[in-house]
Amino acid sequence: MQTGPRETTGPVPDADLVAPRSGRGPYRKGLERRSAIVRAATQVFAERGYHGGSLRTIAERVGVSSASLVQYFGTKEGLLAAVLSEWGRASRPAGLDGLRGLAWIRSMREAMAYNAVHPGLIELFLTLSAEATSPDHPARAFVQERYATVVGEHAGHLLEAVEDGEVGAMSAERAEHEARLFVAAMDGIELQWLLDPRVDLLELFEHLLEVTLARWAA
Amino acid sequence: MQTGPRETTGPVPDADLVAPRSGRGPYRKGLERRSAIVRAATQVFAERGYHGGSLRTIAERVGVSSASLVQYFGTKEGLLAAVLSEWGRASRPAGLDGLRGLAWIRSMREAMAYNAVHPGLIELFLTLSAEATSPDHPARAFVQERYATVVGEHAGHLLEAVEDGEVGAMSAERAEHEARLFVAAMDGIELQWLLDPRVDLLELFEHLLEVTLARWAA
Repeated sequence: MQTGPRETTGPVPDADLVAPRSGRGPYRKGLERRSAIVRAATQVFAERGYHGGSLRTIAERVGVSSASLVQYFGTKEGLLAAVLSEWGRASRPAGLDGLRGLAWIRSMREAMAYNAVHPGLIELFLTLSAEATSPDHPARAFVQERYATVVGEHAGHLLEAVEDGEVGAMSAERAEHEARLFVAAMDGIELQWLLDPRVDLLELFEHLLEVTLARWAA
Repeated sequence: MQTGPRETTGPVPDADLVAPRSGRGPYRKGLERRSAIVRAATQVFAERGYHGGSLRTIAERVGVSSASLVQYFGTKEGLLAAVLSEWGRASRPAGLDGLRGLAWIRSMREAMAYNAVHPGLIELFLTLSAEATSPDHPARAFVQERYATVVGEHAGHLLEAVEDGEVGAMSAERAEHEARLFVAAMDGIELQWLLDPRVDLLELFEHLLEVTLARWAA
């Protein structure tokens, strides 16, 4: 299931990029600059939130003008859409497809190990999610859909585990509650870890996984 | 344990407030206006974050000038300190003092019921906490101290429960992990609840409390 927002339609070509005798170099340069802007915007939105992260700050970090940002992304919302799209791609470690039941749930261990070395992705998502609790936030639909998908995936794989006899019987409603609590605890320990370097994210996650699997097995 | 930031030193008297023959009316009016500004700032910071919430937006919401905000609170950071101080006061339901062990842990049910009818307080805390994952955020020390206190209180009461024979033996390290997971799950379900009105916060919390107490009892 694709959970990202609609892709922006790509860089708007500027005079620099469409110079007829330029070969492929300038086009590649345009793509690189676009990537650099998305990376800078990811950092700035993660640090200051969407409302608090100004186009000017982002432009300064890349070393381009604010006008150049507008040329590539149209509006600040267009830039946000590009950031969320990239986040959706980058935050999904490979290797989850094809796993079933508890094997899929256990693979969250790899997802968490990936998060542990990509704190910027977590910071971006937590900051935007918290901001998006306001009804008019431009990332609200994305965040809502993301949570619905993630909770649905966890609940679905838990029900597969029930079906395969890996865990005891439970209703679909119970599976959804279990999925919500598991996802909630993952978000919460990530927040504590970002706030306090003494918190060991992976150790806490192992503890969470162990007690959760023990409960389901009972 | 007092976890709030240092109190601001109170309203700076303006000409309006110190008019010699004004009696108590204008002073009371000054206090009311100060409260109205803190309430508006709480809303605006909750909706847009600290960086994204401008003094101008806050001033407009109260119907005063930005200069008036500066007069009362000095700087935006001064206003944030007042908001956090008020948050620390308002977010702590009465009746927790004097409880011991599992009785204290179970009283989180009342804390959660209080949260359920004060979504603005939760929104403010989650938004500022997520923003404060950035090292230079002015609320970072407050948020870090708050988490340390809350985790410490949960762990301490869990160890009391061990001491009183209410739950099985566990090390101090294990109690801290358990406290972190419990607090993390509470934060996470609050976030899901704010993002999706179909989520039943109190039902999820009951489920969390039930499975947690069952685990500790084992």
